[in-house]
Amino acid sequence: MGILDAISLENEVFRAYAFWTAITVLKMLIMSPLTGRLRFKNKTFANAEDVKFTSPKGKAKFDDEEVERVRRAHRNDLENCIPFMIIGLFYVLTNPVASIAINIFRAGAISRILHTISYLNSLQPWRALSFFVCLGCTIYMSIQVAMFFY
Amino acid sequence: MGILDAISLENEVFRAYAFWTAITVLKMLIMSPLTGRLRFKNKTFANAEDVKFTSPKGKAKFDDEEVERVRRAHRNDLENCIPFMIIGLFYVLTNPVASIAINIFRAGAISRILHTISYLNSLQPWRALSFFVCLGCTIYMSIQVAMFFY
Amino acid sequence: MGILDAISLENEVFRAYAFWTAITVLKMLIMSPLTGRLRFKNKTFANAEDVKFTSPKGKAKFDDEEVERVRRAHRNDLENCIPFMIIGLFYVLTNPVASIAINIFRAGAISRILHTISYLNSLQPWRALSFFVCLGCTIYMSIQVAMFFY
Repeated sequence: MGILDAISLENEVFRAYAFWTAITVLKMLIMSPLTGRLRFKNKTFANAEDVKFTSPKGKAKFDDEEVERVRRAHRNDLENCIPFMIIGLFYVLTNPVASIAINIFRAGAISRILHTISYLNSLQPWRALSFFVCLGCTIYMSIQVAMFFY
Repeated sequence: MGILDAISLENEVFRAYAFWTAITVLKMLIMSPLTGRLRFKNKTFANAEDVKFTSPKGKAKFDDEEVERVRRAHRNDLENCIPFMIIGLFYVLTNPVASIAINIFRAGAISRILHTISYLNSLQPWRALSFFVCLGCTIYMSIQVAMFFY
Repeated sequence: MGILDAISLENEVFRAYAFWTAITVLKMLIMSPLTGRLRFKNKTFANAEDVKFTSPKGKAKFDDEEVERVRRAHRNDLENCIPFMIIGLFYVLTNPVASIAINIFRAGAISRILHTISYLNSLQPWRALSFFVCLGCTIYMSIQVAMFFY
């Protein structure tokens, strides 16, 4: 079987990968409106032209704790969700055992949802644990890919 | 037709996707040299070893408004352009109506160019509008992908 | 030959691309634990709930030079490694000359490793040089892709 056959609707590994990638993208996209909502609620804007939306004489602010917390969670998504999604495609091509691969995609994606929830609610050690689950999935897949294509 | 047939030069949807992805990457890449140019112009460097390029006794600075504005626009690109490009690949595989798909890629990519222009020139509500166009495209594609591969 | 034939174990260009993408992802992933280690060493946490790990009465801090340096290097990775990896896939499909393509993937990935090393050790002009090598690779590939799929 060529590696291309992996990219098929008949391959449940690829279907799981594509599905959980879409869920991960949707999860990431929530962060922007969430930041925006808090900026309005707390009247904290990073740009002078935005300040006018809520107060004509206000100034740009960068130290609102609620806004900055969402932004830190969002940046953490960029650092972790994106490598997870990118390497997943190549991992699918390495013809992995289906049950392992599907659970990696599931665990990686769900752990990032839990990461956001625990970050926004200051829940430790849950934030750290969920962070390491996805990191572990991505490292595992990357090593498999590096060895397969070497 | 297998979903793989979508990745072909004969498929105008895939061609449009690949083309607009390249344009989006090029747009994103402009931000780094732009930041660098402003750092030199405004003598604002984030690293002590860089400060020496323009003044031997200067210090690192993080609050130049022009530099920070480009950096905010750049971060916004990371948050939006990258999910847009990643989910686009799977959307192509869902065999979408060509005219809709091609216009989504076009609208998403062009709106990010307009977003950068309006961000750097403090143009509201154009920045917000262009932001929401690409966000809407990415959300739409993600939902289509999640439903198709479920 | 259809462009899909490029995605094959027989194609050394695709193999090189997948291998160096995995290396680049692994390199990026190192940054998070590195940041975490420095946060503990320098007792510098961005979240109130994390501060308690090292001192019960401490406060969140955002200005530790060592921590911020790793974070700047990490953000630079997001800005450069991710576009490099994304556009690489489409570049493989343009059926490039193998020796050129393989060296581009190698140069791009290795230059990002050197970028991190020189960033963390304040080595200029090596940081700038390694930055421009990967940027040049990504721009070259993006232009090839845009022209091929136009």
